[in-house]
Amino acid sequence: MTGPRIVVAPDSFKGSLSASGACAAVEAGVLRAVPSADVVAVPMADGGEGTLDCFLGARSGQPVEVSATDPAGRPVRARYALSGDGGSAVVELAAASGLPLVEDVPPDPLNAGSAGTGELIMDAVRRGARDVLVCVGGSASTDGGAGLLRALGFRFLDASGAELPPGGAALARLARIDGSAVPAEVRAARFRVACDVTNPLVGPDGAAAVFGPQKGASPAQVRELDAALTAFADAVAAHTGVRVHDLPRAGAAGGVCGGLAGLLGALPADGAALVAEAVGLPAALTGADLVITGEGRVDAQSAAGKVVSAVAALAKERGIPCVALAGGVAGPLDDLHALGLTAAFSLADGLRALPELKAEAAPLLEVLAEQAVRLFSAR
Amino acid sequence: MTGPRIVVAPDSFKGSLSASGACAAVEAGVLRAVPSADVVAVPMADGGEGTLDCFLGARSGQPVEVSATDPAGRPVRARYALSGDGGSAVVELAAASGLPLVEDVPPDPLNAGSAGTGELIMDAVRRGARDVLVCVGGSASTDGGAGLLRALGFRFLDASGAELPPGGAALARLARIDGSAVPAEVRAARFRVACDVTNPLVGPDGAAAVFGPQKGASPAQVRELDAALTAFADAVAAHTGVRVHDLPRAGAAGGVCGGLAGLLGALPADGAALVAEAVGLPAALTGADLVITGEGRVDAQSAAGKVVSAVAALAKERGIPCVALAGGVAGPLDDLHALGLTAAFSLADGLRALPELKAEAAPLLEVLAEQAVRLFSAR
Repeated sequence: MTGPRIVVAPDSFKGSLSASGACAAVEAGVLRAVPSADVVAVPMADGGEGTLDCFLGARSGQPVEVSATDPAGRPVRARYALSGDGGSAVVELAAASGLPLVEDVPPDPLNAGSAGTGELIMDAVRRGARDVLVCVGGSASTDGGAGLLRALGFRFLDASGAELPPGGAALARLARIDGSAVPAEVRAARFRVACDVTNPLVGPDGAAAVFGPQKGASPAQVRELDAALTAFADAVAAHTGVRVHDLPRAGAAGGVCGGLAGLLGALPADGAALVAEAVGLPAALTGADLVITGEGRVDAQSAAGKVVSAVAALAKERGIPCVALAGGVAGPLDDLHALGLTAAFSLADGLRALPELKAEAAPLLEVLAEQAVRLFSAR
Repeated sequence: MTGPRIVVAPDSFKGSLSASGACAAVEAGVLRAVPSADVVAVPMADGGEGTLDCFLGARSGQPVEVSATDPAGRPVRARYALSGDGGSAVVELAAASGLPLVEDVPPDPLNAGSAGTGELIMDAVRRGARDVLVCVGGSASTDGGAGLLRALGFRFLDASGAELPPGGAALARLARIDGSAVPAEVRAARFRVACDVTNPLVGPDGAAAVFGPQKGASPAQVRELDAALTAFADAVAAHTGVRVHDLPRAGAAGGVCGGLAGLLGALPADGAALVAEAVGLPAALTGADLVITGEGRVDAQSAAGKVVSAVAALAKERGIPCVALAGGVAGPLDDLHALGLTAAFSLADGLRALPELKAEAAPLLEVLAEQAVRLFSAR
């Protein structure tokens, strides 16, 4: 433990290595270079696929499986993660409200709902979680998160005071939102939404227009849903004074981001930065001499909300050098350097065709990590 | 000039970059990483192709073109290099005695001679060179260097005291070597022979057996040449007391190494180490903070006499970190690490097929050098 402290915090290498697998390969290479190194592995994710497992691994968290409602209104068993101390939870929207869950029935973009995700959140809050990270993406619904919010106690009423049925289309008749039945523990919780798109709730770049067609919406249905989401945003504004129509990211996951932001004050943000906090990366960086991150491909896009940029930014704040090891590296890297990335290297050895690189990613990553740490330690 | 001193000493990247081209790309990358760096470019070679140009570039040397005798006895214009101060010379055997020079006539392995190379050497010595590096490889002859040595004043006599004709086969009748006419300046010169094979002069691994067939020798001619080289080695031993029959490397270039070793005390050695000295690399390393070397491919073979291992060894002696940037890197690299190589990286970016890597070697090498120096400088 007298050697350098090296934190290893990669994303998964899509198509070849999980984040944990990448950690293992990098750690082996680091220890070949500096056997006395104090290696701290913090598998990362960007709020998309793999985030739940990454959280479960990092915090000695526990998976919780509950019964929930799928986008078509049917029961489904779904998992979320509760931290070891029970104080925080990670809920992936895809678990109970994902599009793949309703692949067995015809698409129903007008009526698909997000209630299941709200039921998972409610379970976590009832168990004591006060810090809830909701990872969105892959949703079947375009309901502004109304289903999710209903599960947390909100009531969405028409002009006659009757509750609306599930689904986005019904929101066209939304007259008033009633939050009086929302439990105190929900009000006390802090919600954060990890999302990797910046689309607003409504309009030509909004949830219905951009993501509706993927969920089976026809052009007419897109127009219907966009109008319904506008009515939803209007009602949210009337209820809280918060305008989410044009809020960046509000359109993620059929508007779930917008609903959570408008009614529960959740600030949607880059997934990777939120995951970094959820898995305890800032604390792990204390006293670190070097951070090694990585992902399948590092390029100018990585500067925007990906794991590599989030890790580099945390490292830069602390004055810690940060190196990215990736499957592929596409220059120019100036933007990433400016964010705090010291250097980026590809695991490619110049001898293999690209498909072989994926198959051999683990041993190549180990060699590369060894070389990088040897160079870093040489001075 | 307050920045780090970084010496750039790569071999050529065969098929894509000359050593000078590699230097330029690496230097550009280094200066992107550390604009204040004091970069010293020392293009390297391993004693094979490109050595002459590398020497001309490094020492502000001058090319000298003279008329010489090709392996078939015809006149040929050939170049060698003289250092700026005139004290040292680099002669490539391929310039006047190479196999390609006689591709227009039928192979004549029995009679092909190495006289032309001796004529270049004699010219250099007459101009004052006292330090002569002979880079062998690619020869057309199997004459033990008799032709070369004859041009330097030695006489090869048969039993009747008559001079033998050119070519290896005639050495079967060699009875006595007469060195009385060798000029004093030749005696005063120091000869070094850069060669990249370790074959002995005679026997089953000797010059005739292993390289004769490439020069057009039939099995019977191989036997005839091997016997002739044995007679040559016997005569050398009788003349100087030095046995070159089994001397490692003596078989290089049709036995030129053996002849130069036996009659002029030249010690054949790894080309890269000799070239490093000839181009002034040891002096350039004084005060260096980092050395960057490289070649087309770094692998376990690089540990044996290639540019990367020679540069790494010099760096290790001086306690200077040494990093190799290569087209391809094949592990395990433990042997190279042990020799002094801190780390090796491939310029492959994981995005391109192999042929594209060669075409894009210069910009990729620049990016890689920038990344490596950024990491090295980060601590």
